[in-house]
Amino acid sequence: MDDLASAEPTPGGGGAAAAMGSMGVALLSMVARLTLGKKGYEGVADEMQRQLDESESLRGELLDLVEQDAQAFNQLMAAYRLPKENDDQKATRAEAIQKGLQAATKVPLTCAEACAAGIRLAARSAETGNRNVISDTGAGVLALQAALRASALNVSINVPSIKDRDFAEMARNRTISLLEECLPMAEAVHERVKARMQE
Amino acid sequence: MDDLASAEPTPGGGGAAAAMGSMGVALLSMVARLTLGKKGYEGVADEMQRQLDESESLRGELLDLVEQDAQAFNQLMAAYRLPKENDDQKATRAEAIQKGLQAATKVPLTCAEACAAGIRLAARSAETGNRNVISDTGAGVLALQAALRASALNVSINVPSIKDRDFAEMARNRTISLLEECLPMAEAVHERVKARMQE
Repeated sequence: MDDLASAEPTPGGGGAAAAMGSMGVALLSMVARLTLGKKGYEGVADEMQRQLDESESLRGELLDLVEQDAQAFNQLMAAYRLPKENDDQKATRAEAIQKGLQAATKVPLTCAEACAAGIRLAARSAETGNRNVISDTGAGVLALQAALRASALNVSINVPSIKDRDFAEMARNRTISLLEECLPMAEAVHERVKARMQE
Repeated sequence: MDDLASAEPTPGGGGAAAAMGSMGVALLSMVARLTLGKKGYEGVADEMQRQLDESESLRGELLDLVEQDAQAFNQLMAAYRLPKENDDQKATRAEAIQKGLQAATKVPLTCAEACAAGIRLAARSAETGNRNVISDTGAGVLALQAALRASALNVSINVPSIKDRDFAEMARNRTISLLEECLPMAEAVHERVKARMQE
């Protein structure tokens, strides 16, 4: 938290998004663990085990992305600092910047994909998870939704500067598609959680 | 993260909400620090210093709430485990449970208030913060919005079991009022951030 609040640009919003996503799936893991072996939930044991395997896998992926985001940002900053005194240097620098921009876009795009997978998983957790801890599925899906939207912001920062228009369009379209699929899904999960809390 | 994902119920959704809120204001602190002393932002230096003081104060408060949430939950669980073999024991246990429920409601309510204060602060950060890092204000407000909504879920869990109806109504109404004020504000901040990213 101190590093996040400091004037150092990393960790920043990208790392925070990955950390939030990781918290979201960690809560889904907790719900799965508090459902497995509990009375009344014997029938969903196999499904809960699959949810747990998936949430733990996503958790590892999202935690790695915290570090990858900082590395990609630092790589891009190093490219901007390359010398530009003659045409050769300018060309080398421009190429390094383009590589850096693509790397700094791939990380939040991968984070968005993982958060979307987390939201789809939360939809299953909201149906089958232990009702006594279902508010934790609710907190989890809210964290994942915020992380997805923050990742989308971080894709948007870099896309306009990327010269490979095929890559830029792919990143932009994929992000829009994930938001269109998963933001309404996250809202529905939140509603479903509130309904189950009142059962 | 390992503790959050474990079968131990604490830390759970309440602690995660406080941690998310803390990440949100940490990002606002970073934006304030990366605006102070920067060329073109001399005119907002006093305002940015006020924002930084406020975000750092909220960050401390939200980090404390992570621990307070676990303590309140454990206190409530201890009350449920009290003996109930005779009328005296039953009365003592019922009173301890009611105290525990109120404590376990006050923590997410305080968290919701702090997140709401963070969202109001993000609205100022989105206007005056350094445009180069304004996406971090965006990630911050998304974290605070998710934390506010998760805190509201955690208030809702306990309110129906609280016998002091004045307290219960106060907690419910205050939560609704914070959501009504701050969820649209957070969406407006997110839109403002996206607009400034394209300037």
